[in-house]
Amino acid sequence: MVDTMVRIDRRVLEAFCSGVFRTLGLSDEDSRIAAEVLVVADAMGIPSHGVARIERYVEGLRTGLMVPHAEEETLMESPSSLVVDAHGAMGAPVAARSMRRLIEKAKSAGSAFGCVRDSNHFGIAGYYARMALAEDMIGIAATNTAALGVPTFGSAAMFGTNPFAFAAPAGEERAFVLDMSTTVVTRGKVEVYERSGKTLPEGWSVDGSGRSTHDAAGVLEGLQHRTGGGILPLGGLGTALGGHKGYGLAVMVDILCAVLSGAPSGPAVYDTPTSSARVSHFFGAIRISSFRDPVEFRRDMDAMLAELRATPPAQGEERVLYAGLPESERESESDRLGVPLSEPVFAKLVRIGKELGLPKL
Amino acid sequence: MVDTMVRIDRRVLEAFCSGVFRTLGLSDEDSRIAAEVLVVADAMGIPSHGVARIERYVEGLRTGLMVPHAEEETLMESPSSLVVDAHGAMGAPVAARSMRRLIEKAKSAGSAFGCVRDSNHFGIAGYYARMALAEDMIGIAATNTAALGVPTFGSAAMFGTNPFAFAAPAGEERAFVLDMSTTVVTRGKVEVYERSGKTLPEGWSVDGSGRSTHDAAGVLEGLQHRTGGGILPLGGLGTALGGHKGYGLAVMVDILCAVLSGAPSGPAVYDTPTSSARVSHFFGAIRISSFRDPVEFRRDMDAMLAELRATPPAQGEERVLYAGLPESERESESDRLGVPLSEPVFAKLVRIGKELGLPKL
Repeated sequence: MVDTMVRIDRRVLEAFCSGVFRTLGLSDEDSRIAAEVLVVADAMGIPSHGVARIERYVEGLRTGLMVPHAEEETLMESPSSLVVDAHGAMGAPVAARSMRRLIEKAKSAGSAFGCVRDSNHFGIAGYYARMALAEDMIGIAATNTAALGVPTFGSAAMFGTNPFAFAAPAGEERAFVLDMSTTVVTRGKVEVYERSGKTLPEGWSVDGSGRSTHDAAGVLEGLQHRTGGGILPLGGLGTALGGHKGYGLAVMVDILCAVLSGAPSGPAVYDTPTSSARVSHFFGAIRISSFRDPVEFRRDMDAMLAELRATPPAQGEERVLYAGLPESERESESDRLGVPLSEPVFAKLVRIGKELGLPKL
Repeated sequence: MVDTMVRIDRRVLEAFCSGVFRTLGLSDEDSRIAAEVLVVADAMGIPSHGVARIERYVEGLRTGLMVPHAEEETLMESPSSLVVDAHGAMGAPVAARSMRRLIEKAKSAGSAFGCVRDSNHFGIAGYYARMALAEDMIGIAATNTAALGVPTFGSAAMFGTNPFAFAAPAGEERAFVLDMSTTVVTRGKVEVYERSGKTLPEGWSVDGSGRSTHDAAGVLEGLQHRTGGGILPLGGLGTALGGHKGYGLAVMVDILCAVLSGAPSGPAVYDTPTSSARVSHFFGAIRISSFRDPVEFRRDMDAMLAELRATPPAQGEERVLYAGLPESERESESDRLGVPLSEPVFAKLVRIGKELGLPKL
């Protein structure tokens, strides 16, 4: 079954989602940011992090798993650093605000880094890294997540998908935006295999004894009941293909997000039906003009990225891409034609709008 | 055939290597650093980056591929940044000095980042990242290398092994030190397979048409003559196991090292018999006290790392490690028993010492 797709004007979709959040008690600013972060994911062709999630946010804000009126608190601050306690707020607004503050700091300090703790899901990490681009800065963003990743040689989940994003501006070319989970895949991918009854590829996951498994349902069950097994780090099983490197990157993200901010890390980060995993984020901005003329930097980025695109493709492949290119192309298309939503997701939004008494989408 | 191993006192080995470099025209300080960076690799059980390389350095310094009396030049500097031109010097001394300057800057600025361009092989990236640990800082180091990595969906080498290192201090536990190439393996590993006539594992490399290959000799030939093919990024072939993520990380390192310092990047970085790849490095230091009490940070690092070690091992595995743990354990052993060198490497040192008229090792 192929879902039919509808396309909705980006501003219209943002206004609708923003309305949903306002109705649930978020401020105008928070509602606007939360809507923007969801819609950009759909616009870039990452529906797993798009408006399909709004139901979970609605549920979270209604039940108090996410705190609508949380007062974010600055625990520590210097001209080049920041530690914020979100006190259980939705992730996106406090994340975007913190990244903005770090960008302002980096304007004078050259570089600035900060953490947000006691937060919730913040959408795509790339959104925050990309905020640095317009300021001629390199942007970095990361977050820990509920534990589902199994260390090399281990048999139980000890870290999250722990995505890491890195963005650098170009001139004519699309910006370089790497936004990757440090596990080989995310839970969402395993869920897709489970729903369609497909067996998992080798190298994705292990069972409770730490042996390779292809049973999607078994992996998800083990994670849900915390009985062992889980998803492998980038590089897969053992060390032959570099699984220990992905494991190291996942722990690096946990150190930057959680240990640096004094928050729970590893398996202490998890969801239950009545509580949300209180995750931590890490952000950074590095001003390019501390190193060289940003115009020259962008020119050299153009040369590098164009050269990568010009790599002779492997037999049977059409083109060589670079990180951020396909997402940016899809975003341009969405801006022209509207943001693509699957029919069921669109129907879900219509239903939520009706329930909340919002104008028809 | 198993090589016999000899063990040599660390200080004795450092003094010997230092003597080699002094004889070839390096200053006392540069000789000491260059020796230390090589010996620590052997001490940690990474002989591929150890004193076995000294022959190449001797050759390089004699022929002028590496410039013994290069005057390093600061191209740009701010309270939180640094760009140094090494003018073709050996990598290690200018790299260590630049990292030291960045650590000093981070003491007042909170964080500091810098590049070294027109440099040469700098040994293990982890050495420089580790320099930050004693100062209660997080350390970062990276370098680009001669191109040998093939982009996802591509068929030709467009980036180096581009190692990335990240170090964070602990208390009782060994420090967390991730030091990884962003390709699935390095050229050295492929050479080992070639010498022993073994076929390469799936996911390591592609031939000139971009298709998976297991032919080590063919891969090395294609790289040497630049006729296509090469080593795959971390995550392997295509996107199924995340090869596009390793590709992105490799490009990230190239951006930080080369584009940020205005140096050659990608396939423009290569060795010939009469020229050395002039590589660039990137370093960073982030002061932990800008975020929280470093004592508390180290305590939480201990808890996290101990918990990772306590992960139930997979069936058939003895223990779960974390990045930096096995290397640090081997280093302690080397400090007790001497640094392990294979018989042929030891013989090589003896021969070099004799040629240069140095006291017997």
